Amino acid sequence: MFKIPDHQVAGHQASTGIIGPLIDDSGRFYKPLQSDHRGSQEVEFYTKFSSITEIPNHIRKFFPIYYGTKQIEASDGSGPCPHLVMEDVVSIRTNPSLMDIKMGSRTWFPTASEDYIMKCLKKDRETTTLPLGFRISGFQIYGDKDSGYWKPERKYVLGFSTDDVRVALKKFVSSNSSNDLVAEPDFAFAESVYGGPNGVLAQLLKLKTWFENQTIFHFYSCSVLMVYEKEPALKGDSPGVTVKLIDFAHVIEGEGVIDHNFLGGLCSLIKFISDILDNLPHNSAQNSEN
Amino acid sequence: MFKIPDHQVAGHQASTGIIGPLIDDSGRFYKPLQSDHRGSQEVEFYTKFSSITEIPNHIRKFFPIYYGTKQIEASDGSGPCPHLVMEDVVSIRTNPSLMDIKMGSRTWFPTASEDYIMKCLKKDRETTTLPLGFRISGFQIYGDKDSGYWKPERKYVLGFSTDDVRVALKKFVSSNSSNDLVAEPDFAFAESVYGGPNGVLAQLLKLKTWFENQTIFHFYSCSVLMVYEKEPALKGDSPGVTVKLIDFAHVIEGEGVIDHNFLGGLCSLIKFISDILDNLPHNSAQNSEN
Repeated sequence: MFKIPDHQVAGHQASTGIIGPLIDDSGRFYKPLQSDHRGSQEVEFYTKFSSITEIPNHIRKFFPIYYGTKQIEASDGSGPCPHLVMEDVVSIRTNPSLMDIKMGSRTWFPTASEDYIMKCLKKDRETTTLPLGFRISGFQIYGDKDSGYWKPERKYVLGFSTDDVRVALKKFVSSNSSNDLVAEPDFAFAESVYGGPNGVLAQLLKLKTWFENQTIFHFYSCSVLMVYEKEPALKGDSPGVTVKLIDFAHVIEGEGVIDHNFLGGLCSLIKFISDILDNLPHNSAQNSEN
Repeated sequence: MFKIPDHQVAGHQASTGIIGPLIDDSGRFYKPLQSDHRGSQEVEFYTKFSSITEIPNHIRKFFPIYYGTKQIEASDGSGPCPHLVMEDVVSIRTNPSLMDIKMGSRTWFPTASEDYIMKCLKKDRETTTLPLGFRISGFQIYGDKDSGYWKPERKYVLGFSTDDVRVALKKFVSSNSSNDLVAEPDFAFAESVYGGPNGVLAQLLKLKTWFENQTIFHFYSCSVLMVYEKEPALKGDSPGVTVKLIDFAHVIEGEGVIDHNFLGGLCSLIKFISDILDNLPHNSAQNSEN
């Protein structure tokens, strides 16, 4: 009944002897509760988030549906273990392209331990977290039946420079997704995935408006997950663009202050995406202006 | 001809044996070039900024007018020394109330030396820089002819908590500016200074729109200076609200990325100011909503 997810690109992944998330065939995702405070903090977040009625529905849909916790057999065979149960936003797709982007120019929160802060700060400085206000944690890009997916190793992705991030965001919406950053992207899916009223840009702008005002939560080390489908099940279907926030093990109370750390990174990501849309190859009028 | 400014609330201040800025009676401000790289970096910024014709006038007016550099006698009597010459945005006022707010949740730039980074990080964590994305560096609030100014010491201001910042921003636009944060603010100047089409909030929102797009500069350790006058020279005059950006010794090139660090702090400051306007004592309809 439970199996290891096919389409996970970041976070702890199950493998022999290593505990990781599971999915079932009813579209639910089971995340083992991390033994330290992180598991309980994520449960606390989902519980509090579910109880706050002021969060409007158009914002609530950016968060995976939460179904509580459940004791199931751990993926590593170590016996029963409590799991967070939530909506599986990916496995219902046939051949999803997806990207996990860890938000904020700081992944540590002020009250964390000194060791944790120094570890995070080091990683923030070694990745694009510091200069860009976000870093790509992982992605998979579907090519076609023959080429399958390009799903680079985590270490390779974390080594991305600013320019690499720019190219990866272009390749993510291109049809010629050869397994490197070298080939010139063709932007085949840029308008249908990033653009339009339900595209990534429009969704990120809705999130931005919320983050300019919400002072309930500060989302440290949380990710934006972008998902779409190059070959929708029904011909003529939209690419079914989904934008979700995931990973809430380091969410703390906002105490009346906006999450300027997440918001700054979100504005930076928005600028990257809108630059791509403003400079599409056929878009020559706008090109000459920019 | 040159004298020490009356109304400086932050930064290096001239006193016996200590070099600091000077003003003349034609409305110019002379800032001694700091001997390390900071002086030359600020000259470099002003030179580059002046040369970029794409910066629109409604943004350019947030920056002091720059008149180049000039060799004049240093304030400490140590002889001639090069000074940055710029518009004096304060001394033309009779009894200005002013506040210097250092922007960003990080005051250090990625390529700074390790010593500098650790020194800044420590200060960012000890002040509201980290939690709020900005810190008040200093202020003076004019009371009236009898009480004069409340101009607390720098050390006291840097010790402000989040709540202290909230109160200081309220006292800044109140008439009962007794020399502490205890007395209940009366918000007498809140609408005329923070509100309205030329008020602080409207000006900060214009800056925000620019920062969402500009990728030319990253303004580390730069301040927003707010100035107004409680008793304008002519009765019925507006309080002459001025918002300026100052201190550009740590501006670096944006390299195609927005200044998410400044922008995040700016959005946070905007939220503080708009919360004050939304919750004015007479504004009871809005109060009950919030």
